[in-house]
This record gives sequence, structure tokens and C-alpha cells, in this order.
Amino acid sequence: MKIAVLGHGTVGSGVCEILIEKSKEIAKSAGKELELGYVLDIRDFEDVPYSEKFTKDFSAVLADPEVGIVAEAMGGLEPAHSYVKAALESGRSVVTSNKELVAEKGAELLSIARAHNANFLFEASVGGGIPLIRPLYSSMNAAGITEFAGILNGTTNYILTKMFRFGESYEEALSGAQTLGYAEKDPSADVLGWDACRKAAILSSLIWGRTLRPSEIPTEGISKITSDDVNLAESCGFSIKLIARAKLLENGKIFAKVSPAMIKNDSPLASVNDVFNAVLIRAETTGEVLFYGKGAGKMPTASSVIADIIECAKAKGNIKEVFWEDGAQSVFANADAVSERYCIRTDYDASMLIPGAEIIGTNAYITPPLSESEITVLEEKILEHGSLLSKIPLFE
Amino acid sequence: MKIAVLGHGTVGSGVCEILIEKSKEIAKSAGKELELGYVLDIRDFEDVPYSEKFTKDFSAVLADPEVGIVAEAMGGLEPAHSYVKAALESGRSVVTSNKELVAEKGAELLSIARAHNANFLFEASVGGGIPLIRPLYSSMNAAGITEFAGILNGTTNYILTKMFRFGESYEEALSGAQTLGYAEKDPSADVLGWDACRKAAILSSLIWGRTLRPSEIPTEGISKITSDDVNLAESCGFSIKLIARAKLLENGKIFAKVSPAMIKNDSPLASVNDVFNAVLIRAETTGEVLFYGKGAGKMPTASSVIADIIECAKAKGNIKEVFWEDGAQSVFANADAVSERYCIRTDYDASMLIPGAEIIGTNAYITPPLSESEITVLEEKILEHGSLLSKIPLFE
Repeated sequence: MKIAVLGHGTVGSGVCEILIEKSKEIAKSAGKELELGYVLDIRDFEDVPYSEKFTKDFSAVLADPEVGIVAEAMGGLEPAHSYVKAALESGRSVVTSNKELVAEKGAELLSIARAHNANFLFEASVGGGIPLIRPLYSSMNAAGITEFAGILNGTTNYILTKMFRFGESYEEALSGAQTLGYAEKDPSADVLGWDACRKAAILSSLIWGRTLRPSEIPTEGISKITSDDVNLAESCGFSIKLIARAKLLENGKIFAKVSPAMIKNDSPLASVNDVFNAVLIRAETTGEVLFYGKGAGKMPTASSVIADIIECAKAKGNIKEVFWEDGAQSVFANADAVSERYCIRTDYDASMLIPGAEIIGTNAYITPPLSESEITVLEEKILEHGSLLSKIPLFE
Repeated sequence: MKIAVLGHGTVGSGVCEILIEKSKEIAKSAGKELELGYVLDIRDFEDVPYSEKFTKDFSAVLADPEVGIVAEAMGGLEPAHSYVKAALESGRSVVTSNKELVAEKGAELLSIARAHNANFLFEASVGGGIPLIRPLYSSMNAAGITEFAGILNGTTNYILTKMFRFGESYEEALSGAQTLGYAEKDPSADVLGWDACRKAAILSSLIWGRTLRPSEIPTEGISKITSDDVNLAESCGFSIKLIARAKLLENGKIFAKVSPAMIKNDSPLASVNDVFNAVLIRAETTGEVLFYGKGAGKMPTASSVIADIIECAKAKGNIKEVFWEDGAQSVFANADAVSERYCIRTDYDASMLIPGAEIIGTNAYITPPLSESEITVLEEKILEHGSLLSKIPLFE
């Protein structure tokens, strides 16, 4: 069976290399030989040993009946979406590392895969090399998952780790991350939380079976975190992490949020440092389970794509656990449905304004649990008499 | 399809309860209705709503053609081994939480399962409710795993956590664990490391495909750890954990060891506390991956048994990734094949005896990497002039 790899960037080239170098192990696992058939890219790559596999013409890939599985690693919505759709409609299975595609078009593509008795798998789209998506659908699908919270973006976790360990400012840490290639020149998608938001949307949709759109999830990045926040957190035994979280409410709706959050140092999420990712799952039968590993990087991510390729090669028809639907109504809960405690810093004594607050430093407080409306009202009250220096929810 | 549950102890009763209470979710996942058919136990249980399912006669279970899957949760080698063997020989799939059975008889039972196109699965035998065995064989089987290190015993981890957090002595912490039901009246299997050793044997056998017997693994428990060891470790930024570890060497042999080990506090294993378990995997393509969760307890463990039952119900024939063989030759490496650094405490200045040692406290040292023979020679030298108060390897 031939594999077509779409996109020869970091992940796509890793997939090609593993397909060639580990062909024996892969054949053993898959139960059949899987051969790199085509590499689609608009660029030319003459220095690679498989340069004769390159094509710029997707219709040539589709026209070859020996191509059984397509691995999409181009990123972005188009032309990835059109190519993936066409491949699925031709009865091929598709695996992808493209979180934007899965988050925005997952329901549609899963439905096409099912209609053609093929598969659409995306282990590499969340948590890079961490086996995460498959354990969720194959081991925990009857565990009664009620909540997840993840550190899903390595760039922001690296920046926060530098701020905590070495006392760097946000700007210094970001600049260091850019120098090392951990952050892009335009770091917006990472530092503003969009990347984590897309991954949270994928996890929520998969776990609870109904589309949660990235645009529905309130998302805040880490760009406002200051050294004062870091010092305060440290003095109280907290870390600050960019946490992407979602919770199934009793009314069947989903509460989700991406934001910096204070986490007690004894939580397993607090010790996830540098570019590592982790997802904490809370389930009725298993209690807390955590998956940890490299959330990005060429080989870890390519390795997850390969695991999906093997799964597709072995699968006898559509894997029905991997599915979610678009509903007519949004599954997103009213933002007021969940109350959280917040860590608040002001530039004056605001203790009288926050009944029940715990005072954790000079003009620094932990509020009682407050809904979105309640924290907004409190913000307005604080701003009547001075400044609100920061407002960070606690993840508990 | 009927499910027979063998043994109505903690895990077995949990399996019965989930089978009944989550029958809808299970049917959806498994693609067919799975009904609790029999519960085999020598004791009588009249207060449970499924009391009419009890039997003391295993041949009655085997004689019923509607029984498709047997869940063994009796523990111990016999009669569990005979029953499981008979069930597999009749073409039924068997799932188990019995680590002794899997560690001692795994190769034989997997081979019988394969010969009858059935399955023998054991997710619950290592790491309780953590999805671990399935990710290893279904997601990471082409990742090139080179090493694992696990905190696989909740009882000893609870004791060590109490010693670190509350300054309790080993005896106080053990007694507290017994009061809470975390440790048995005879705690030998836990505190001497035998339980962790069996689980390490299972993981090694599964990951590298050849039987590693528990009796081959050098095993040391935590009963010699003192408050002085804890204080020294804390002062140097280390934790002490009971670590079960194994490594694939270049010659194809396996080095394995169960012992207390010093771990730097920034390792993800160091922050695994209380009764939680975790396994760190090192693989060529994915780098470090960690799985964390509740390693024991009724519902977490039963939940893993249920996940295996669903897997068996869905499987179309034998899952060939779950397999290892007994070789004529042992796979265990020469104990000298691997060198480790050790933390040494003496009752006199022994620095002259340990060239290249790092002095980390009064009469306390970290040695350079030493093989088993080298550390034995050093021990003898130290004993010529005084006492060796402790000797704990570092896990790095």
C-alpha cells in the first residue's frame, strides 16, 4: 500500500523519514508493507533520497489506486481541506497533524470518512508525540470523562518556565524563545492562546461527541503576565500556566476556557515545564489521569502521524468511536455556569470590596468562587478607586 | 454476549457494578450488548442485586456457549491459571487484573490465545486505572522504546510521600498506610518491591517482546530508607521513589532493576505523590512520555478491566501486537552492563575512598557512575573503616 504525504515541512519530512527508516517495524505493526508513494509540495527538494516521489499535482495522487492512506501535514485550511475531503470521498483514509483543519472541519470530515467506510485520524494534532487521542477514544470512552485541563502549547509553557526559573520578563523570555526557534517571528497564535484554543476544541469535540468551535471558547493568552504576577505566585506556592480546560455540566452543556491560571505546586500540571505538554483528565471511574510528553517537534509529531497511519492500515472499516457531530444548537454553556476563584492584584487596599477574600500579599487577594458576571462587577468596582493590576483564575 | 467475572473481591465487584450501571455506554462502545452472565466466587454474596449470577462451578461457566469473555480478578496463580488457560483453549478471550499471573505465565497464555484466535489482555495489571498497556502496544509500537521507569506501587509511594512531607519515620508512615487500608497487615509484597517487580516484568516483556521473569530482576524495597536519607535528599533537591526500571541495551539484552532511587525534583517522576502511579517512557521518536494516574483502587482498576472487555468484544481475531515469547536464553543483561551513580552515606570521612565523588553533606557523597561490581568493591572498602549508612542509586 502506498502512502501519500501532503506537505514536506517539519512534520511531513519527519513522516517520510520514519516511513523509510522504520519500514520493517511499520510493516510488522501494520500487517502489510507501507511504502512512501508521493510527497506533495509546491517547493522542490532535491537533496532528499526520495526526491523522485515529489509531485505538485494532487490529482495524480488521487488517480493512483495503490494509494491507500493520505497523511496531511500542510497546515492551514486551504488547500488542506479540499485535498482531505477529496481523499476521503475517494474512500481513502486520511491522517493529519493539522489542528486548524480538525478544529474547524472535524465534524464534516469525520462524517465523510464514515460515509465511505474510511478513517480520519488526528493523533498528531494535539499534544505532538503524546499518545492522547487514541487512549481517549479506545481506553477511556466508557470512563465517564467529566473534565480536562491541558498545557497544550509548548511555546507559552517555555516562556512561563523561563519567567519562573530565571526571573526573566515576558519580553526577555519571548525573545529567547524566538532565538531558539520555539516561537515564531509573529508569535500571536501561541502567546494569545489561539493554538491552545484549537486543541481544546478538538479534545472537547472528541470527548463529548459534539462540535465545540474554537470561536466559542473565551481565550486569553499570556502576554499580560508580569514579573510581579510570577513573584506573587511563587510566594504562595503556585505556578502560572496557560491552561486550556473544559467541563461537562449537568445540563449537558460544555464550559470551556483558555487562560493563564494559577495552579498549586502539588498539582501534577504545575511541574510540567519547558516545551513539554500535558493533559489532565478527570473521569468518573478512573479519577485523575495525566498524559505528558513533547507537544511539538519534528520526530515526536511525525511519530504520532505514523501511529495513525498504522491504525488506518489495520482498521477494518470506520472506527466508530472517533466521531462528533455538528448540532443545530451550540453546546457551549452560558459563561456564568461555572464559578472560579481568582487571584487579584490592585494598587490599593481593596479588601473591603471583596467579601470573603483571602489576603495573600500586599493588595493581593484570592476571591471566593465567582461567575463571569460577578468577576466583571468586581472589576468595575475596583476600577472606581484605582487600578486592577492583574486578574488570574485559579485552576483547582 | 455474556461476561463471566472470576472473583468477587475489590476489582471483581467493581467490574460487575460497571457492567450493570454503564451497560448502555458499554454496548455503544463494544458494538454489542455485554451482559454480566456469571460471577464465580467461593464465597456467598446475597446483598448484591446480581446475586442470582453467582456460581462456584467454573465448568458451568465454560459450558455456556453464550459466554464470550472471561474477566479474571481472583489474583494468585492457582486456580486462576487453570481457569484462564481453559477459557482461552475454548476460544474465549480473557482479560485480567492479576499481575502475578501475567508476569509468570504471560508468554504461555498469549501463545494459547493466539493459537485460538482469541485475546488475553491485562491493562489493569499495571498502573490500575491508567491507560498504559494499550497506548504501549497500539500507539508506541513503532516508536523505538529504549527505556522505562515507573512508580508502580501506590503503597510504597504513599509511605515515601508521608516521610518527605510530614517527616514521619518509615514505621510511622507504614502504620498510617495500614490504618487507611493502603497497606496490608503483611506489607511484604509492597514494601520489599515484589509487586513493582512483577509489573516491571510485564512492561519489559510487552515492550521488547521477550519474557523477563520477575525472579531475574534485582529487587530491593523501601524498608531500609531512614529519615536521614530523606533529609539528605531534601537538602540536595532530590526525592526518593521506589523506581522499577528497564533499559534495552545495544546487545539486545535488557537491564532491569527495582530499588529506591534518588530523583532530581525537576523530573516529572519526582512530583508523583501519595498513592498515584506513573510510568516514564523514553523512545527514539517521541522522546520522554509519561502516563500518570491512580495505580490501584476499586473503580480505577475495574475501569481498565472494562476497557479490555470492550476491546475483546470489538476485536476481529487475535491482536498480534500483544505478545511475547519465552526464549531459551534469558534476556536479562549482565548486572555489570549498566553503570549508575549512587548516593552514599557513611559514618566517617570516606571521601578518599571514592575518587571523583561529589560531596553533598557531612559524610555524604554522590559517586561517579559505577557498575554493580564496582559499587560492591566500594562497599567493602568503606566497611573496612566504618559503616555504610545508606546506598541509593540515582535515576537520571
